[in-house]
Amino acid sequence: MKDFEFYNPVKVIFGAGKFAALGTESAKYGKKVLLVKQTGPLEKLGIYAKATSYLKSAGMEVFEMGGVTANPKVSSVREGIAICKSKKIDVVVAVGGGSGIDCAKAIGVGAMYDDDIWDFFLGKKVAEKSLPVGVVSTLAATGAEMSLHCVITNEELKQKYASHFAVNFPKFAIIDPALHLSVPRFLTAAGMCDTITHSAENYFAGDPLNPMTDRIAEGVVHTVIESEKVLDEPDNLELRSNLAWAATISINGLTDCGRGAFEYGAHIIEHNIAAHHDVTHGAGLSVVHPAWLAYICERNPTRFAHFAERVFGPKKGSKSDLALGLEGIAMLKAKYKAWGLPVTMAELGIKDESSYEAIAASILVDPDSFIKDKKIVFDVLARCK
Amino acid sequence: MKDFEFYNPVKVIFGAGKFAALGTESAKYGKKVLLVKQTGPLEKLGIYAKATSYLKSAGMEVFEMGGVTANPKVSSVREGIAICKSKKIDVVVAVGGGSGIDCAKAIGVGAMYDDDIWDFFLGKKVAEKSLPVGVVSTLAATGAEMSLHCVITNEELKQKYASHFAVNFPKFAIIDPALHLSVPRFLTAAGMCDTITHSAENYFAGDPLNPMTDRIAEGVVHTVIESEKVLDEPDNLELRSNLAWAATISINGLTDCGRGAFEYGAHIIEHNIAAHHDVTHGAGLSVVHPAWLAYICERNPTRFAHFAERVFGPKKGSKSDLALGLEGIAMLKAKYKAWGLPVTMAELGIKDESSYEAIAASILVDPDSFIKDKKIVFDVLARCK
Repeated sequence: MKDFEFYNPVKVIFGAGKFAALGTESAKYGKKVLLVKQTGPLEKLGIYAKATSYLKSAGMEVFEMGGVTANPKVSSVREGIAICKSKKIDVVVAVGGGSGIDCAKAIGVGAMYDDDIWDFFLGKKVAEKSLPVGVVSTLAATGAEMSLHCVITNEELKQKYASHFAVNFPKFAIIDPALHLSVPRFLTAAGMCDTITHSAENYFAGDPLNPMTDRIAEGVVHTVIESEKVLDEPDNLELRSNLAWAATISINGLTDCGRGAFEYGAHIIEHNIAAHHDVTHGAGLSVVHPAWLAYICERNPTRFAHFAERVFGPKKGSKSDLALGLEGIAMLKAKYKAWGLPVTMAELGIKDESSYEAIAASILVDPDSFIKDKKIVFDVLARCK
Repeated sequence: MKDFEFYNPVKVIFGAGKFAALGTESAKYGKKVLLVKQTGPLEKLGIYAKATSYLKSAGMEVFEMGGVTANPKVSSVREGIAICKSKKIDVVVAVGGGSGIDCAKAIGVGAMYDDDIWDFFLGKKVAEKSLPVGVVSTLAATGAEMSLHCVITNEELKQKYASHFAVNFPKFAIIDPALHLSVPRFLTAAGMCDTITHSAENYFAGDPLNPMTDRIAEGVVHTVIESEKVLDEPDNLELRSNLAWAATISINGLTDCGRGAFEYGAHIIEHNIAAHHDVTHGAGLSVVHPAWLAYICERNPTRFAHFAERVFGPKKGSKSDLALGLEGIAMLKAKYKAWGLPVTMAELGIKDESSYEAIAASILVDPDSFIKDKKIVFDVLARCK
């Protein structure tokens, strides 16, 4: 086990109906609140009207900012920062999935600095302060509600980069699985893939001698797979709750403890595909993740044999580690496919390879990237057929 | 899954040699530090000399308080509170196991109030503030380093009670497995039992529909059992690290999420045995825990069958849930025995039943107790033969 620090001060409030706590929780941090709103169905479902009502009932003055898209744009972040500065906002609240939450995190940081916010994603600046941010997650997927990660897309520069500052942690995260009941099948499946990926990235990087961390990561994957019936029972609150908590546990830091590495290979590649093609994050992952795993499995088959046995249960018998590992990866890919997710670039809507050079070039300069050779990117993308 | 809140702001610093960070971490909270010292081998091993040196090197003025015993006494807590008040201490530091850490937590609270500290354990007062507390754990056992629990014994009243205030969380917890290498076999085994118990108490209480929480709790038990070789290899840093992190995860709140109950039955009984007999906590548990589990297994065998299959692997086949559950409990008890722990009251040093009435009476008035019928206590104690 490698040395590590674990620190996660997010107050999680979990349960159906807990959305109603938004006002009282937010009001602890001041009077003026910026409500960050995503495009998509949440407005129509009345979620934002409810949020506003909860905030106003707690005596807050509510400012709104809409238009936050999937793969949230730095232009939205800049818009939010400008509102915070001109209106002297006390607390930023996001009600949404990872897009809205990450946008709020970046706004919270940017509001405290005169520097351009993108400098914090380029690694040029370190954030040591943020406005308080509170979140309500409406989707089990990115785990942004309890993580310090924040992923923003610079649409002009075609860069999708992450920051990982301790000040990115929300003050509170309301996880209300009743809000997840309306998530459509495809997005539910994409969230399931995202959750699995968060536990199955660092699992294969760094120090493998981490039985406690392994068990938590495997537990996430087990929980998601054992809750897959949710795709046919979208109103099943128990299954929604399982996915919601698994998504949060998967990326709140626990599954990285003791690894001594931070190598989210599938994420790095997916982020940089998304910088050039506007794809749903979890759907980009369902294509890239099995391909990335197959690539690294060939280099470290022992670890994959361990994962395959633990999670999918095939017995080693006379098989080689490589054969067993690849069998496990094939079983994972079959799950993604069965859930209705794309598993090839064509299914993702990327019909030719004309952007591959640009994707590879982006990866090589991504501040988070540990992939320093474009041949690796091409090798992985070639497996996405 | 039941509604829950999860909040744990402890900064964990994990790794061999991290003890040396004590000074810089403590100095963040002020200049005057009270170092809480346990009786036992730590002084002789030079641990406290090192702690003092680290604190002084960081420019701190160090006050010391020694004499903290296993089952730490409220008289020690009162002594520490008096020092904090008279010397205007800024931060309380414990270097030790659960005893020293819990003593420091209680001192931190008491230093902020004029009320008698025992009122906070009787449930008469609620703590909303504490001096900052920092800890270095020297033993994998109670998980006190990352928990909000604090267990103190009132030796005059023969009461061993717990408080669970959010202000009890240490500001930082240094978990340095190199310090664990010198822990003798018996205390190592007692810590292993304590760790398992923390995950296998609430597991059987409240809502069983918690797959993510189940996996974490089962993962703790797996990790401890898979690291049992440590008893023959006390210098094995990897195994010590596994136990250290499992002990911390087991009681930092994660294994309680979604249960909607807080029923630590074996703990309640053990605490009240210890209030009358000065026994090692983990050794009291190795006697009581299997007995308590057998008692509740007869009332909820389905859950025990699940646990037995997941953790110990026997297949159900044609067995009843009760038979399978009891088989799992027997396997757990056999582990405790094999590790050299007592599994009967006699082995614990309690040769007759003369104190049973007093123990039962204590349990019925323990503010944490959900056991309201002394017949239950006698039933469980009768199984400790």
